Amino acid sequence: MAPDEIAIIERYFRPLSGEGAFRLLDDAARISVPAGCDLVVTKDMIAAGVHFLPDDPPDTIARKALRVNLSDLAGKGAKPLAYMLGAGFGAELGEEWLAEFARGLSEDQRSFGIHLLGGDTISVAAGPVISITAFGAVASGRMVHRFGGRPGDALYVSGTIGAATAGLEILKERRGPWDKLGREERKALVARFRVPEPRTGLAEAIAGFASAAMDVSDGLVGDCDKLAAASGCAAAIEAEKVPLPPGIGIEADESLLATLLTGGDDFEILAAVPPAKEMHFTGAARGTGIEVTRIGTLREGSGPTSVSLRGKILPLERRSFVHGRGPGT
Amino acid sequence: MAPDEIAIIERYFRPLSGEGAFRLLDDAARISVPAGCDLVVTKDMIAAGVHFLPDDPPDTIARKALRVNLSDLAGKGAKPLAYMLGAGFGAELGEEWLAEFARGLSEDQRSFGIHLLGGDTISVAAGPVISITAFGAVASGRMVHRFGGRPGDALYVSGTIGAATAGLEILKERRGPWDKLGREERKALVARFRVPEPRTGLAEAIAGFASAAMDVSDGLVGDCDKLAAASGCAAAIEAEKVPLPPGIGIEADESLLATLLTGGDDFEILAAVPPAKEMHFTGAARGTGIEVTRIGTLREGSGPTSVSLRGKILPLERRSFVHGRGPGT
Repeated sequence: MAPDEIAIIERYFRPLSGEGAFRLLDDAARISVPAGCDLVVTKDMIAAGVHFLPDDPPDTIARKALRVNLSDLAGKGAKPLAYMLGAGFGAELGEEWLAEFARGLSEDQRSFGIHLLGGDTISVAAGPVISITAFGAVASGRMVHRFGGRPGDALYVSGTIGAATAGLEILKERRGPWDKLGREERKALVARFRVPEPRTGLAEAIAGFASAAMDVSDGLVGDCDKLAAASGCAAAIEAEKVPLPPGIGIEADESLLATLLTGGDDFEILAAVPPAKEMHFTGAARGTGIEVTRIGTLREGSGPTSVSLRGKILPLERRSFVHGRGPGT
Repeated sequence: MAPDEIAIIERYFRPLSGEGAFRLLDDAARISVPAGCDLVVTKDMIAAGVHFLPDDPPDTIARKALRVNLSDLAGKGAKPLAYMLGAGFGAELGEEWLAEFARGLSEDQRSFGIHLLGGDTISVAAGPVISITAFGAVASGRMVHRFGGRPGDALYVSGTIGAATAGLEILKERRGPWDKLGREERKALVARFRVPEPRTGLAEAIAGFASAAMDVSDGLVGDCDKLAAASGCAAAIEAEKVPLPPGIGIEADESLLATLLTGGDDFEILAAVPPAKEMHFTGAARGTGIEVTRIGTLREGSGPTSVSLRGKILPLERRSFVHGRGPGT
């Protein structure tokens, strides 16, 4: 691999390091947990051809690798602190690719107020394979889990559902209501597939008022199944309430709606909120500028989430989008 | 990938999970830092064909992935707590391989008193690529760094140097003094290449008495260069004092000695110890049953470590063993 790992680390990764990283000159890092907080940790790997397209812009690969982890933290009510980077690069990557990859990390570090703690750069036979471990802080005892929801809790989702799926369809040149959108709107959908928007701003509202939460990464319906099952409940979603991306909502027929509600890479937050806390939750969310929408409820029972469209069950051929990412943490 | 990731996690990885992992049913884990301790974190990745041979036994791949990280923690004076596992598997791996891989992790968890916190399992085009993030605890303010050494400090090394290099030479069917060893002794050398022995037991002695330390992973001489440079010193090693593996020491000619002193994968500890603390350090080490040997000193100055053999400079064609692992942390 050329340029070699030492040069890569010095040139591109050292400038990203911060407190506890010892300028990447040591064998390990130190994490300082803010007083009164619990430390939350998550690790998502992404690989070429599985989670991103091999010719995606390198800065978007870096951002996606980082942001899927920040999204997990947000779903647990945790604010991001720092991250470790494991990078497996193939021999074919040049200086320009690496510089763009590091630029993506650098800009996202500033956006999310985090820094690089350390990690490892290795050669792999087929890459890139990016493994990030991200650390976040939540007030002691306030980490929110998939479990914890109760029958009667309202189900909320942040932002819109289906933008990344629409973006992937556009990249694959499949037909849909996006054909009627302008060039900039279509680009925005593709951007949401390539670069998720982790809902870091919602962390406090979730830690304060949600009984259960998770990020929606493998399809809203399937992820709702998981939250409900972990909470010992069943769930019901009213599909007409699910916020779709601008320009797609009114055009979506049943089949497209089913695709969007089960497509991957939304990286929005699904939260169960007890009725008594709904006003606090929506109020706290409003203060962040991130839209949250009530899309259903948790109920007594078990089994797959019931998804209805104006009172009728919506037919679903799949519940989740699977691209080789397991559930894990 | 078959069996799919959900099945892999349920069958093989869930049984490895412990406190803070929420049975791998959540999106993130919680780390509890013991009272009065700092949290130390390290991340080393290993890939097939780079850090291990593709047909190595799967349990040894798992152990090596874990132990290279535990070795980093030991070098910082930290005792291991838990780890996150990122696993990129190729489609060709079957149930038997995975079961053996998990068995390696499980047995090592028991040996080192740690548990799995979470992680991610993905498909990759060419694997396995294993990315472990390991967490350790050290008494607050006692983390030991590469920097911190002072002129006059003694240099100690744990165990023996060169066993893994000899093991790799045996695997590659190269000639050497190991040809005269018995089958079991040769197997032991190969085992040291495949499965390092992280010096976890020395953590307390290092945290208590070393001014600087690191694990020796890329060759004793090159790693000594790094410790000395980080400490703003020069170093001198007396090669005749370096403990070589049983059966090799007396047979080692100058050329072999140079190979062993610059070969990789020793995963011993190199520690700088101020003269006033040497008796404490060696006493504490003796209590653990891990041999430590004084091999040289730190001096005023800078530049590459001087390596002498009975008073004469030992010629070295390389200083480090490079297999694509950068310095990083």
